[in-house]
Amino acid sequence: MHAYRSHTCADLRRDNVGEEVRLAGWVHRIRDHGGVLFVDLRDHYGITQVLCDPDSPVFSQVERLRSEWCVKIDGVVKARSESLVNPKLPTGEIEVYIRDVEVLGAAEELPLIVFGDQEYPEETRLRYRYLDLRREAMQRNMTLRSDVVRGIRQRMWDQSFREYQTPIITASSPEGARDFLVPSRLHPGKFYALPQAPQQFKQLIMVSGFDKYFQIAPCFRDEDPRADRSPTDFYQLDMEMSFVEQQDVFDTIQPVIQGVFEEFGGGKTVDTEWPQISYADAALWYGTDKPDLRNPIKMQVVSDHFRGSGFAIFAKLLEQDGTEIRAIPAPGGGSRKFCDRMNAFAQKEGLPGMGYIFWREKDGETEAAGPLAKNIGPERTEAIRQQLGLGVGDAAFFLGGKPSSFERVAGKARVTIGEELGLTETDRFAFAWIVDFPMYEADEESGEIDFSHNPFSMPQGGIEALDGDPLQVKGYQYDLACNGYELVSGAIRNHRPDIMFKAFELAGYGEDEVRKRFGGMVNAFRFGAPPHGGCAAGIDRIVMLLAEEDNIREVIMFPMNQRAEDLMMGAPSEPAPEQLMELRLRVMPEE
Amino acid sequence: MHAYRSHTCADLRRDNVGEEVRLAGWVHRIRDHGGVLFVDLRDHYGITQVLCDPDSPVFSQVERLRSEWCVKIDGVVKARSESLVNPKLPTGEIEVYIRDVEVLGAAEELPLIVFGDQEYPEETRLRYRYLDLRREAMQRNMTLRSDVVRGIRQRMWDQSFREYQTPIITASSPEGARDFLVPSRLHPGKFYALPQAPQQFKQLIMVSGFDKYFQIAPCFRDEDPRADRSPTDFYQLDMEMSFVEQQDVFDTIQPVIQGVFEEFGGGKTVDTEWPQISYADAALWYGTDKPDLRNPIKMQVVSDHFRGSGFAIFAKLLEQDGTEIRAIPAPGGGSRKFCDRMNAFAQKEGLPGMGYIFWREKDGETEAAGPLAKNIGPERTEAIRQQLGLGVGDAAFFLGGKPSSFERVAGKARVTIGEELGLTETDRFAFAWIVDFPMYEADEESGEIDFSHNPFSMPQGGIEALDGDPLQVKGYQYDLACNGYELVSGAIRNHRPDIMFKAFELAGYGEDEVRKRFGGMVNAFRFGAPPHGGCAAGIDRIVMLLAEEDNIREVIMFPMNQRAEDLMMGAPSEPAPEQLMELRLRVMPEE
Repeated sequence: MHAYRSHTCADLRRDNVGEEVRLAGWVHRIRDHGGVLFVDLRDHYGITQVLCDPDSPVFSQVERLRSEWCVKIDGVVKARSESLVNPKLPTGEIEVYIRDVEVLGAAEELPLIVFGDQEYPEETRLRYRYLDLRREAMQRNMTLRSDVVRGIRQRMWDQSFREYQTPIITASSPEGARDFLVPSRLHPGKFYALPQAPQQFKQLIMVSGFDKYFQIAPCFRDEDPRADRSPTDFYQLDMEMSFVEQQDVFDTIQPVIQGVFEEFGGGKTVDTEWPQISYADAALWYGTDKPDLRNPIKMQVVSDHFRGSGFAIFAKLLEQDGTEIRAIPAPGGGSRKFCDRMNAFAQKEGLPGMGYIFWREKDGETEAAGPLAKNIGPERTEAIRQQLGLGVGDAAFFLGGKPSSFERVAGKARVTIGEELGLTETDRFAFAWIVDFPMYEADEESGEIDFSHNPFSMPQGGIEALDGDPLQVKGYQYDLACNGYELVSGAIRNHRPDIMFKAFELAGYGEDEVRKRFGGMVNAFRFGAPPHGGCAAGIDRIVMLLAEEDNIREVIMFPMNQRAEDLMMGAPSEPAPEQLMELRLRVMPEE
Repeated sequence: MHAYRSHTCADLRRDNVGEEVRLAGWVHRIRDHGGVLFVDLRDHYGITQVLCDPDSPVFSQVERLRSEWCVKIDGVVKARSESLVNPKLPTGEIEVYIRDVEVLGAAEELPLIVFGDQEYPEETRLRYRYLDLRREAMQRNMTLRSDVVRGIRQRMWDQSFREYQTPIITASSPEGARDFLVPSRLHPGKFYALPQAPQQFKQLIMVSGFDKYFQIAPCFRDEDPRADRSPTDFYQLDMEMSFVEQQDVFDTIQPVIQGVFEEFGGGKTVDTEWPQISYADAALWYGTDKPDLRNPIKMQVVSDHFRGSGFAIFAKLLEQDGTEIRAIPAPGGGSRKFCDRMNAFAQKEGLPGMGYIFWREKDGETEAAGPLAKNIGPERTEAIRQQLGLGVGDAAFFLGGKPSSFERVAGKARVTIGEELGLTETDRFAFAWIVDFPMYEADEESGEIDFSHNPFSMPQGGIEALDGDPLQVKGYQYDLACNGYELVSGAIRNHRPDIMFKAFELAGYGEDEVRKRFGGMVNAFRFGAPPHGGCAAGIDRIVMLLAEEDNIREVIMFPMNQRAEDLMMGAPSEPAPEQLMELRLRVMPEE
């Protein structure tokens, strides 16, 4: 017989009754029922009930066992009597009578109980992560993560992609976030950087002729703490293809993402139609570039109904350039109480409030109610109702001004309205491609033009498009939104040095600076670069969505805490003086 | 039709004749045959011959194309006449008549020619890696690497292992090599380290109850330059299992490695019997713990034949403690010329020389020749011949002293003899497990005891074994040798805190120091640690062997040069002063 186990703790069934077996695992729970000791023995695979009579020669040893001791038992499988069968447990038809027991690893008093679901402060959970990870939810999340990554890989291979590893100790790649630096010992005073993403490398792989690349790639950003991201590193499915247009990338990545959600989404509906929504429409309809399409509410422009109307605030607003009035329809929200609550919500978010109209029945007629309706009168109110397709029992909320001043709150209000009115389907994954991102944005104060997203994207319309107003230039750049999260981001790249230099020039970067900052890639483009594009999908976020977790640390095996510390391993820590000497570094005293 | 291609450059066959097609790729070669321009168009998948007549409207455009320009062509597939079919090319039955051409990416004058196999200095190859990678051999090596990694993963999954990612920004893990440090911005003066291997984490994963772990893991070591290793990072197949003994690990990893060699070994024989050889026997028989078993030569101890013999040097040597005489049999090496050459080889390696005997026929009798034979006389010579199983035409070489003084050279001599005599089979992968490594070694000068390999291995015989002579203690530690390389290294781990502290004590480490250096793991072992073990296999080395390359840089996409520089990306480089300020670091001037 094997030294440690003949079966796992999930294996034994009625068929095994009478067999001599050996099991190894952890004491999950131990109970004394009338002198008989019942032990739930747990391993990665499941739980088996083992028990020991008082007249057993090893009774006194079993009596000494405590929770989370790692033990090996020899015993005989017996059938449980009908009344004691546990249908929830795959091994619930049997139990094992202990003949012999060996303690493989004893445990001291536990700082964190594995059995049950008592809550603990995050500090405790991370310091004793190895105990926290033994808990059912964490075992499930980690195996889910592993399975999802495998599922993604499999689907990439199925589409003839190959995985290539790119350097982790490399050059600084200024992509917006802060680099982690790594001092060089062989070249004191010089530093490597950890890649924020393999962006330049994957494009170089295309220039090298590899055609289809992917990688489950660690990415490193020295981020300031935030609940939903790791302060140090995260993983992405990074992919790139040559000789493709935007639609080719969509056609390639959709089966991967959709397939993974179908396989691991726990039976929730997974949308198969992924609409393509322009960045401008997304902002208008949903107030965000990561819309949650499970929520059917779509905002509309209703400026005309307020122009010159009796509602002076909006009427005046509309006299200014660049302003408009938008409506958030709220089917089923037609009560003053609900409307007032939403108005208060907008105020809490920093707006003066949200005007509203709601429709009720009066004497068999549809009546518009609320202060706004009074101000603009029945004709305009009715025109609004018809435009929004609303009726009795429904409401609409109104926000006005420059869209940039209220769009964010409008988006949040839409989400809240959808949730509160039960309009948002919870058992569904809804996807949308957001396309036609603007290449540039102007600084609100200085008016200076800078890239709004990835400077490496190909501008739509090619080099000619760069002759006009930069703010009108759109890029072949896209995001995939799912249930209000950004899951994927990508672009068709700018592979032509002439267009690239001109694109950078518009944002105020001279040729020298571009060469200095992106030299590796820009040089490569001089030697026959193919058109190419791709995207990156956030692994941690995909797993979070599938695991229904809100905190990224629930889907990472050994995460940092929010202060970027590893409490279990004691990182970061003070280096030895010799280490600093070798690197010719000195730590400066605090000021 | 697709914007860039209807087929890849490997797709077209006689069946496609008459079709209008679109291809995209690089101008591999361009030739002018009597005014007709022949272009070998290349992509990742293959080569297609496209051609252009002088009367074509796009002739002048095709005429301007140069090597490595990235182009798109539209054309018609025509069959080649029988005499022009190229059977070496999958597309060799057809050619494509160009109707239209578009330059997608022009190329400046090339610093490195992709076509053919002209050699370039490594500096050039690494600086223009994207051109170097377009070459056939590099395309092959990189796809091989990708396929091997995939094959390894598949085989691990097939055995119910799951892949879990461990932290890359973490704590210093003193495993013998130098850490790369990463300064913390949020905790100035403190540093993270990049993991030399996920050793502690994989053991923590076992303590967390995950049972079977693997990872294709990047490992980081700040190594001094050497040709056959990367100066910064490398990849390993890292795996660990709970509730196992040494043989379980062997039974698990053999199908993985053997399977990969069978799949990707290019038809070479792959041994299926993997002998287990003790560390002591490997040293004796092969002079190394990474023996090349394709070479049948096995050394033997022949001390007794020289004790008190007429060969005074050996006879005297043997009077000292710890000395012995070993023979390297050399079947077929029985000529003075060969023996003298091997003797010279030993001298070049720093030994006084290798004594030898060779056997020849004289008057129908077997005669032993050489100075050594004369010195010890025919009886002893004959006894040696019989022990070694040699005969006419064979030779034997002799080395004497303390084994540590000559073992390394003996091992090299064995390799050279095997190669020179054609005894070493070249079309074969031969594997052997080296087992029973000593836990400790004594410093030659100080006599101080230290761990000889991994301090986390379980000593054979448990805690009692640690009561005797430390130098006699063996560990459950093992290596896999293949063709003279160490491919895998692993151990059954010491999961018991009591044995661990005692094991460290023998090597002079107090409890406090152990807790300080390995706190994360040692703490975890207090809470019910399972017995566990595993190993790690060098991915780069496996691919090197399969690709028949001697330099690790041939199997890495973007390697550093030997001075740990990335010439293409310009790493390492000087940081911006703000970056150092944020980290509160100052670079000290050179002394």
